[in-house]
Amino acid sequence: MLDALKREVWKQNLRLRDLDLVLFTWGNVSAIERESGLVVIKPSGVAYETMRPEDMVVVDLNGHVVEGSLRPSSDLPTHLALYRADPSIGGIVHTHSTWATAFAQAGKDLPAFGTTHADYFRGSIPCTRAMRPDETKAEYEKNTGNVIVETFQTRTIAMSDTPAVLVKNHGPFAWGKDAGEAVYHAKVLEETAKMAAITTMVCPNAAPAPRHLIEKHFTRKHGPHAYYGQSR
Amino acid sequence: MLDALKREVWKQNLRLRDLDLVLFTWGNVSAIERESGLVVIKPSGVAYETMRPEDMVVVDLNGHVVEGSLRPSSDLPTHLALYRADPSIGGIVHTHSTWATAFAQAGKDLPAFGTTHADYFRGSIPCTRAMRPDETKAEYEKNTGNVIVETFQTRTIAMSDTPAVLVKNHGPFAWGKDAGEAVYHAKVLEETAKMAAITTMVCPNAAPAPRHLIEKHFTRKHGPHAYYGQSR
Amino acid sequence: MLDALKREVWKQNLRLRDLDLVLFTWGNVSAIERESGLVVIKPSGVAYETMRPEDMVVVDLNGHVVEGSLRPSSDLPTHLALYRADPSIGGIVHTHSTWATAFAQAGKDLPAFGTTHADYFRGSIPCTRAMRPDETKAEYEKNTGNVIVETFQTRTIAMSDTPAVLVKNHGPFAWGKDAGEAVYHAKVLEETAKMAAITTMVCPNAAPAPRHLIEKHFTRKHGPHAYYGQSR
Amino acid sequence: MLDALKREVWKQNLRLRDLDLVLFTWGNVSAIERESGLVVIKPSGVAYETMRPEDMVVVDLNGHVVEGSLRPSSDLPTHLALYRADPSIGGIVHTHSTWATAFAQAGKDLPAFGTTHADYFRGSIPCTRAMRPDETKAEYEKNTGNVIVETFQTRTIAMSDTPAVLVKNHGPFAWGKDAGEAVYHAKVLEETAKMAAITTMVCPNAAPAPRHLIEKHFTRKHGPHAYYGQSR
Repeated sequence: MLDALKREVWKQNLRLRDLDLVLFTWGNVSAIERESGLVVIKPSGVAYETMRPEDMVVVDLNGHVVEGSLRPSSDLPTHLALYRADPSIGGIVHTHSTWATAFAQAGKDLPAFGTTHADYFRGSIPCTRAMRPDETKAEYEKNTGNVIVETFQTRTIAMSDTPAVLVKNHGPFAWGKDAGEAVYHAKVLEETAKMAAITTMVCPNAAPAPRHLIEKHFTRKHGPHAYYGQSR
Repeated sequence: MLDALKREVWKQNLRLRDLDLVLFTWGNVSAIERESGLVVIKPSGVAYETMRPEDMVVVDLNGHVVEGSLRPSSDLPTHLALYRADPSIGGIVHTHSTWATAFAQAGKDLPAFGTTHADYFRGSIPCTRAMRPDETKAEYEKNTGNVIVETFQTRTIAMSDTPAVLVKNHGPFAWGKDAGEAVYHAKVLEETAKMAAITTMVCPNAAPAPRHLIEKHFTRKHGPHAYYGQSR
Repeated sequence: MLDALKREVWKQNLRLRDLDLVLFTWGNVSAIERESGLVVIKPSGVAYETMRPEDMVVVDLNGHVVEGSLRPSSDLPTHLALYRADPSIGGIVHTHSTWATAFAQAGKDLPAFGTTHADYFRGSIPCTRAMRPDETKAEYEKNTGNVIVETFQTRTIAMSDTPAVLVKNHGPFAWGKDAGEAVYHAKVLEETAKMAAITTMVCPNAAPAPRHLIEKHFTRKHGPHAYYGQSR
Repeated sequence: MLDALKREVWKQNLRLRDLDLVLFTWGNVSAIERESGLVVIKPSGVAYETMRPEDMVVVDLNGHVVEGSLRPSSDLPTHLALYRADPSIGGIVHTHSTWATAFAQAGKDLPAFGTTHADYFRGSIPCTRAMRPDETKAEYEKNTGNVIVETFQTRTIAMSDTPAVLVKNHGPFAWGKDAGEAVYHAKVLEETAKMAAITTMVCPNAAPAPRHLIEKHFTRKHGPHAYYGQSR
């Protein structure tokens, strides 16, 4: 079942490596078929070299395995919490990409210092609060998802406007309308994190870009007034 | 029409990727044929992998499309403002290359810390002032070009002596006598930005190179007293 | 003798280069066969390009060459001290990998800033004290091993829980249940050192991850309650 | 004439690129045949892709071209000053490698923070004083060589013990017993400069390695008591 989606999720998992976003098996991509509510995700701890499309695991939105002989990624409950929170999300990526993880470890939001960032994210990429001991003890991965959702709600950020988050002391998650866009956003996040770190290195008190510039670039690429690219 | 120039512009756009100056479609190269006043530029948002020479768009100096079925790069009006401002410019490049963009995001000039810089740029590479809300709202890309031109005029820097600029909170533009030299300068800019960032990292109060050394190296490679290379 | 182990040690030495952990000949891998107490190690100063499996040197735990026409790595006595100190160690790696070496040169522990680190190391990776002049003068490499062992004993860190160390003003050693795991840990160490350096760059007073998060991630992958991967 | 040496110098120039030490044509390698006092050097401003062994230029120690139709590297007089100053030098390299150039631009010595450095350089790699305007105006490249020689004399450093220098606001030169060793030292310099920059980044007040450790490592690899490698 879902052969095309399994192939796509497999392909996007491999693309993580081609884009230099993962070391060893340190990342996972999933995608959802919204009609059936079925999610396809990478199996846990399997090497990219030997992984095949048919190794992808199919689960429902409660995390029950519907098809597949391997165990799903241990981060599955985090993915599911995000799919449940925003129906516009079609694909999710988790990595430990170097520069984005450094910001997560620092517990700092990634500021929108420039248009590279604002072309894809409508403001700072938030860093979650620390997980409490009780949240870590049981259902840790599900609670990770809940803390992400809480972060966007508390700070009134639309998950579709800013499709990435930094989990404190852990690393980034990114999403999009499908698995391919989620991987694309994960790469943009890593590149903008690198640019932001260097920005603060050459100017420790650098300020974010002005609001009107961020809005200009975001709406140049997204929404009814977009005029970038060919598809209009 | 302009088949050779279209092929050259196509080739130089691909070279951006080979020189590690662009991620995805984040850059564009144009060139001008001065006799006819026609400009050839990359189409907007087209992947480098599938782009062909015949996809290049031909426009006049007012931005009217003369040939081509695709929309030109959204940054076209910035290119045109620069071509109109200095007739010695034959090619222009815009990228979001990592280290140069970090300086643009910091809103800082790139100081001439050494001879690597002075071999190609006759002093600091200026960073523009911030764009005002009204400049951002309408004709944003054209105003970007105007602010670049204003920067060189206000600071009395010759665009042909210092063939690059940092647009505040955005990224670099570079130019040259043709598209190939513009790309070359974009790469030199990125490398000198990286060197400069590391220079300030190991010595926060590092000073620019003395004026006489900058002049020595610039004139060793440029103008009537040049003695570098074979072509004299 | 020990043909399979020699081939494995040879392969893991070459893998150091594929993982970008060594420049020129700046690294060495060994492995031990615990039944016989025989150790296989890379020869000293031999280029990776021309090195063959049969060039590996076999020594006993006192450092006497049992087989092999080449001299063993000059770091052999350090390896032997670690094999003698903890019988769970099956393979050892020494490199001068860039970011880990920088922490060693700074004389600083590598803090556990996040889960990438805690998935493999159960807390800070310790940096040894400086070697004294008398320890440097004679039996330097053996004393290096002794200082490593002393560091883990003094600070009551289990070598099997935190399988790496930074030798002050020198560089990292890493180990594991076999040569392959030792190389894997050497790469994780380098990546977490890079992440940690960038973490402190974007936030000079960044704090280590909370203890409960470190324990959660370490025990998620190690010990009786592990639930990561397929092999359970 | 000198066909074997021309081929070797050509090969070592290309190796600069393989070792990621040069961008475009930003480097040059020479070698000397001490019996005849003839020096072979790369031509000026020629692309690495098209350069052939027979393009190498042969000059005497006064800089007169003995063979070759192309102009020698403009840095030739600097090379010659070093060959004249120390008869143990057999090959010389000049690059603008990123991290070493950053230290040169900062005007700072490269401290011996660890054993990676001390295995090849017997203490800090000195940075020259700034060139005076009169030294820059005429015979600039020759004066560059003289300032390098002055630096080693004033600070009583043996050029054969510390085979590299940073020219202030310019970049590094490295040397060795032949062209291959000079290139090797240029790469070690770049790597140790990167390590040193990161060392100061994670610990701004990091101290150099103690003298006894530097001596231990240098003499482990050099001189009568060396015991590293196979060739003894």
